[in-house]
This record gives sequence, structure tokens and C-alpha cells, in this order.
Amino acid sequence: MKFCSDCGQPVISRIPQGDNRTRFVCDHCDTIHYQNPRIIAGFLPIHDNRVLLCKRAIEPRYGLWTLPAGFMENGESTLEAALRETREEALAEVESLGIYALFNLPQINQVHIIFRGNLVNTDFAAGEESLEVALYEEQQIPWDNIAFQVIRETLKFYFADRQSGHFPMRVQDILFKRDK
Amino acid sequence: MKFCSDCGQPVISRIPQGDNRTRFVCDHCDTIHYQNPRIIAGFLPIHDNRVLLCKRAIEPRYGLWTLPAGFMENGESTLEAALRETREEALAEVESLGIYALFNLPQINQVHIIFRGNLVNTDFAAGEESLEVALYEEQQIPWDNIAFQVIRETLKFYFADRQSGHFPMRVQDILFKRDK
Repeated sequence: MKFCSDCGQPVISRIPQGDNRTRFVCDHCDTIHYQNPRIIAGFLPIHDNRVLLCKRAIEPRYGLWTLPAGFMENGESTLEAALRETREEALAEVESLGIYALFNLPQINQVHIIFRGNLVNTDFAAGEESLEVALYEEQQIPWDNIAFQVIRETLKFYFADRQSGHFPMRVQDILFKRDK
Repeated sequence: MKFCSDCGQPVISRIPQGDNRTRFVCDHCDTIHYQNPRIIAGFLPIHDNRVLLCKRAIEPRYGLWTLPAGFMENGESTLEAALRETREEALAEVESLGIYALFNLPQINQVHIIFRGNLVNTDFAAGEESLEVALYEEQQIPWDNIAFQVIRETLKFYFADRQSGHFPMRVQDILFKRDK
């Protein structure tokens, strides 16, 4: 942020009075611009013991496999966001079985929320952001070509929990190595 | 948003190409400014079957009772945010028993995430944003003076679940009436 979105004057970066964090501050119109984490909402869609995955048609991780998920928008619930992303990326309808996992990615200011659900039918197809959409048995999951760690962890949780038939809420922090 | 935070020129509100939602767009530097929901993280702190509540020293809802909670910051996890808010508002340390409830407030673009936890000791006190901090038995909860519906619902979930000793993840949408 370089300019104030309220008045257009340059902002400076400092700790406002009574605060303890650096913020973008406009001293022209006296506005503090807070920046907060964003939510990514998605689904783990299931059909006949198989998991629906989408092959990414966009960067980052073009050509790798993911679950349908994306940035939650203003005006929707987390579930509505996850349903919308599933429609957009996989042209698929799911019936929610409930919230399943929450991942914190504090280094990139994201929180990922994944729901579990059953496909309503098998009329899915690649949306604009997908090259291909397919159902995978556990034994066929392309582990080496999964786009994101969050997706890998969700799949691991699911296959582990499926053995007991009990799917407790899963929470995990994802931290990236800082060495590059 | 009136001005581009990247270049300081006026933004306009329109649907960008390939999108289906109105965004603030800067045609001077070709930037789309996305706006997304924010997360409020908090704790339901317990001690000896009593719940810790904070009497608000700030608007909105000055003088009404709430759980320690506030806006999640960049660079932290949801749990870290909830622990920080509990320290700030109640000068209290809690040991987390896990995530407990998620509330969607789509009309005001918020997601509230509440953890359940045990107070580590009873050395709590009012932080800067609290007038008073106190432990309440279920029978003494000031139901008519609770600051927010999210807090009322969290307390109701807790007292109901406590009877079974089982605390499943709770998810609820909070919708406000539009008639005022």
C-alpha cells in the first residue's frame, strides 16, 4: 500500500498511537488501514469412496492436482464460498457433510477451511480454472503431483479418518521453510 | 475505496473482464482491489465450571458482556489470535482445548472462530478494552446484557454440550434482520 484508498494521499508505515503493530496510516485524512488474513474455502468431494480432484489450468502450480477451493468473497458464508468454488472449478454439486479441516498459513496470511461432502451426481467437468477433473481411489492419488501442502494434508486426514468412519474437526498450522 | 492504494489515482467500481463481481478497479495502473471477509478469533475460557466474560469498555456495545475476541492479524494463526485477544482483553492465560465454533456473518463480511480453553490461573484482570472481567456460573450469565449474538450462541452451545461432555465443532450462520 502506497496511497490512502480514502483520500489518495501517500500513506506512511508506522505504529499508530495505542496500537502495537505497524500499520499503513494516512496523516492527511487520519485513517488507519488495517490488513488482515484472507480465507480460502473449499471442498473434499466424495463419490463411491473416490475423491474428486481438479488439475489446475492456472498458476501457481499449473498442471498439478488440487481440491476445488478459492478465496471467500464478501457477502457469503464459508460453506457458500466452498460450494461456489466447487461449481466454478469442477462444475460439480456437493451435499455438505460439514466442516472438516482448518489450516493456518500465517506466513502468507491465509486460513484455509475445507468441507467434506458427497457429490450429488457425476455430471462434473473442468471449469475455466481446471484442465481436467477426475475421481481418484486412495491407491491412485497422484501424491507427487498435488498442488499444495494443504491439499495433501486434507487427503491424508481423510484417508486416515475414513478407516474409523469418524471425522473430527482437524486443525493444523502449515509453516514454510524460510531458506529460499 | 475511492483511490488506488498502489498509484493514488481514482478507482472505479465495475466487473473486471473474466470476473462476475463488482470490484474496485484502477484503470491507471491496471490493478483490481479485492475485498474479503475478516476473521474474528476468540476464546471461551473456563475455570471450575465457570465462564470468563469481559464487560466492554469500548463501543459498540459499551458496558455489555462478551468473550475475549477480536480481529485476527496478519502473521498469526487463528489460535494465536484468540490467545492474544484473551491476554489483551482479560489479561488471562488459557490452555486451549481446541476449536469449538465458527460463525458466518455474511452481511458484515465476518467469520468468527471461537476456541474452548481452561484458564491456567485466576490472575485475570480487565485489559484496556474491558471495564471488568468476571467468572460466571451458568445460572448467573447476564443473558440480557450479552454484547453480541455470536457470544450468546457460543454460550448456549457450551452449556448444552457440557451436559454430555462432548463438544463437537459448531457452525452457524448469523443473519441480521434488514428492517432498520
